[in-house]
Amino acid sequence: MRLLVQSHVASHFDAPTELMLMVEVADAPGQTIVSETLTVTPHHDLAATRIDDGRLLRGLVEGDIEVAYRALVDLAPRTEVHADLAQRDWSDLPADVLPYLMPSRFCPSDKFLRYAARQFGTLSGGAKVLAIIDWLRSNVDYLHGVSDAETTAERTFVDRAGVCRDFTHLGITLCRAGGIPARAVAAYALALDPPDFHAIMEVWLGDGWWLLDPTGLAPVRGLVRIAHGRDAADIAFMTSSGPAGPVVMTVSVIEVGSQSGGITAN
Amino acid sequence: MRLLVQSHVASHFDAPTELMLMVEVADAPGQTIVSETLTVTPHHDLAATRIDDGRLLRGLVEGDIEVAYRALVDLAPRTEVHADLAQRDWSDLPADVLPYLMPSRFCPSDKFLRYAARQFGTLSGGAKVLAIIDWLRSNVDYLHGVSDAETTAERTFVDRAGVCRDFTHLGITLCRAGGIPARAVAAYALALDPPDFHAIMEVWLGDGWWLLDPTGLAPVRGLVRIAHGRDAADIAFMTSSGPAGPVVMTVSVIEVGSQSGGITAN
Amino acid sequence: MRLLVQSHVASHFDAPTELMLMVEVADAPGQTIVSETLTVTPHHDLAATRIDDGRLLRGLVEGDIEVAYRALVDLAPRTEVHADLAQRDWSDLPADVLPYLMPSRFCPSDKFLRYAARQFGTLSGGAKVLAIIDWLRSNVDYLHGVSDAETTAERTFVDRAGVCRDFTHLGITLCRAGGIPARAVAAYALALDPPDFHAIMEVWLGDGWWLLDPTGLAPVRGLVRIAHGRDAADIAFMTSSGPAGPVVMTVSVIEVGSQSGGITAN
Amino acid sequence: MRLLVQSHVASHFDAPTELMLMVEVADAPGQTIVSETLTVTPHHDLAATRIDDGRLLRGLVEGDIEVAYRALVDLAPRTEVHADLAQRDWSDLPADVLPYLMPSRFCPSDKFLRYAARQFGTLSGGAKVLAIIDWLRSNVDYLHGVSDAETTAERTFVDRAGVCRDFTHLGITLCRAGGIPARAVAAYALALDPPDFHAIMEVWLGDGWWLLDPTGLAPVRGLVRIAHGRDAADIAFMTSSGPAGPVVMTVSVIEVGSQSGGITAN
Repeated sequence: MRLLVQSHVASHFDAPTELMLMVEVADAPGQTIVSETLTVTPHHDLAATRIDDGRLLRGLVEGDIEVAYRALVDLAPRTEVHADLAQRDWSDLPADVLPYLMPSRFCPSDKFLRYAARQFGTLSGGAKVLAIIDWLRSNVDYLHGVSDAETTAERTFVDRAGVCRDFTHLGITLCRAGGIPARAVAAYALALDPPDFHAIMEVWLGDGWWLLDPTGLAPVRGLVRIAHGRDAADIAFMTSSGPAGPVVMTVSVIEVGSQSGGITAN
Repeated sequence: MRLLVQSHVASHFDAPTELMLMVEVADAPGQTIVSETLTVTPHHDLAATRIDDGRLLRGLVEGDIEVAYRALVDLAPRTEVHADLAQRDWSDLPADVLPYLMPSRFCPSDKFLRYAARQFGTLSGGAKVLAIIDWLRSNVDYLHGVSDAETTAERTFVDRAGVCRDFTHLGITLCRAGGIPARAVAAYALALDPPDFHAIMEVWLGDGWWLLDPTGLAPVRGLVRIAHGRDAADIAFMTSSGPAGPVVMTVSVIEVGSQSGGITAN
Repeated sequence: MRLLVQSHVASHFDAPTELMLMVEVADAPGQTIVSETLTVTPHHDLAATRIDDGRLLRGLVEGDIEVAYRALVDLAPRTEVHADLAQRDWSDLPADVLPYLMPSRFCPSDKFLRYAARQFGTLSGGAKVLAIIDWLRSNVDYLHGVSDAETTAERTFVDRAGVCRDFTHLGITLCRAGGIPARAVAAYALALDPPDFHAIMEVWLGDGWWLLDPTGLAPVRGLVRIAHGRDAADIAFMTSSGPAGPVVMTVSVIEVGSQSGGITAN
Repeated sequence: MRLLVQSHVASHFDAPTELMLMVEVADAPGQTIVSETLTVTPHHDLAATRIDDGRLLRGLVEGDIEVAYRALVDLAPRTEVHADLAQRDWSDLPADVLPYLMPSRFCPSDKFLRYAARQFGTLSGGAKVLAIIDWLRSNVDYLHGVSDAETTAERTFVDRAGVCRDFTHLGITLCRAGGIPARAVAAYALALDPPDFHAIMEVWLGDGWWLLDPTGLAPVRGLVRIAHGRDAADIAFMTSSGPAGPVVMTVSVIEVGSQSGGITAN
């Protein structure tokens, strides 16, 4: 499947401010960047850094800044998590997967060991992950205005409501508490309504990471990865060292014919 | 300086349990492992994995387990953090340093942005770090029994008391909130009384990591690194997937003549 | 039913300390104190104060103190909460019942408005209270060692385990969040095993308070009230202004023949 | 001093909702209500209930509601807290003062015992209260937008910023942690800019309650009490059982000549 992803992010900084942006499509297996353009207006001196397979833009900025990104991406078919995927023993996990077993700022999985054992303890692997996702969709309402940038999975567990970031944090927390490595992924998402940067998760089962959207709002086959990390703190599309003016942001993801050479969407 | 570090960790697992141990000295710059022995009694099948410069032992264990470790280590002289070390712009930090700017499970630095600006905002770099350490030593009491395995830096800020782990978490939190990368380090520490696995921290200033002990209990020149991570969740000497019996642990660190061939301590 | 309740509380204070004790049976409707004795050894000057229907002992103490209390109490039959008890509109509640609608230290009911509506929102009055109690007994394990003196209902909701105090706090929280006044009660409890001061709750339904034991460990007919309050902070059997030595405490509750003049239990 | 206090509170309820309002001046010592009018538009059936010296309006409402209140109040001169006021032993406190020693929803004083001892432990009584108020004014910034309706004193202690409610909660918390009964008071306040319902506190010293404004924004001599309670949960000017539309509120407090018969302010 070929997708055209586009984003515009604009803000203003009254004083010189360190800015980090993650809006570019990751250079990751299963997604091929056919072409892309990044425009920063007016000119700011932003450096590109690779972090795992993600790409970070950063620099000292002041005044207005608008970042327009556009990429044509071919996605390979993606298999969905299924019940018979095996949960690996800790001893069999690759070293770089281990950090995703640990609690993080918004995913205090150490507090959920008892709950995970009580609720999902008879299950393992893919079956356990699917049960956690089912639980989330049955017990948590997708709702704006309940959570904010400090909301942890513990709070969402009480509120029973939140947005994609909150579903992802609680899903990750329950997986880690159940012994399954899990991490947060920032993505462009086809058919997400309204369009936005999407926070999803992936779990390590069998011999690899499996991507899933705990909200169920976007099909897994249309997810384009930007970056991954322990939780939202690692994968924000924008982080700044000081106050930013209002952030105006638009995102769009369009499926295009893979043979079509002439994209005209702007 | 040549140090003989030794540790014994013993526990018991009623059921088969995934176990991860970090007791071996890190293969890190500034410390040379002259010789070392690791004995696991009775035999358990533990695999060694390298994580950054740390070394992780892991495996599925059941019944009694005792791990005895002994290493002779040469430490290069270590310069202490000083006030004129420069704080780097985010844009100038190596990519692998960036995660240590972010909040983590026990170091919710995002909640301390205002406090760090209010208290230490006029300072920068080494001077800021030294002011944070001074603040910790003046405002937090070293005291057992106040904190536990779930205590965050936010709670220690209220309690104003804790052990090495808590000093480290609050020190890291205030540094990150002040824009300075900081991470937790597990170490063997010369002259720590009573001897124990020690939790310390390091900050990125100038062009490197600078080790320091926020409690002031152990001299920096006698710290032998085991592992580092975002906070205590990453560097525990023992992590298990299920309940462990009482953990009996002894640690000793002795300075020995570097020319001395015959170590007799056991 | 006639009950003989007895308690011994002993501790030690190195320095002069303000002490408050609530061990005496309340002078409350439905329970008649036939006889009682209170012995403080060695002599300390403790004053008795009535707080609602509870009785508080307080004074400045130092050194050893042992308080032995013994009372013979006749309990009137007590009707259990039943499903068809009406939930009153706020406007119809007596003024002194209103504070028990509000969140308190250990019962942050304001955080549970959404959960209470989601889980119990179709129910009202006695039926809602019974559903909450059923939920507690199905979803929370009675277990020592999980909670401590700072554990809130929010934490118990995550832990899904606790002791009588925790069941009571979560029960109160869910009732208040569902619009039903609820408060904590300290009591002597017949058939509680092991015997202890018991924390239970009561809810305002119809035209009065209804006592219930959310743990289900003690029959309602055998509960002897000591005091009530917003939560455990108000009804501790012992509160002191400074550190107490180890507290040794024994409680016993025995059913005796109501005609029996000669009690021989000590 | 004679004050004319006025408030208008308007909102809308889509569904029948239980409403409680506290806008009327308390019938308390030191303040004499010369005249007052309360107008509810359109007519709703609101009942008046006395709670301590406060007056609560409550009823089931639906649709628009506007409550206009106007009172002419004579205030007796009020002495400010001074350093030599004695702190009473717990044993010497009136029974109805004791609850204000206990932690409450927004004032978790039990967590601040160590801090209060460390920071203010050498002081007592009025001197301690004045030191706490000085500390608040030096260490906490008056700032809108940092706190919300769930903000506790613990969070304000970290944020070091908040509004009158937050200053009051942290002030109460530190006083209680220091052994001094303290409670929250809702008031009309002369010279508060911008005018608003004001949250202040009072402490029990010597033989009575002493009113003070921890923000320092309003003179104590011009405070007109509405209600008191353990914290903001008890003294909100409006509490409703369900969602309210936007609340439009205006408050004004004007000093008028005490001999002046003809008030013309509207």
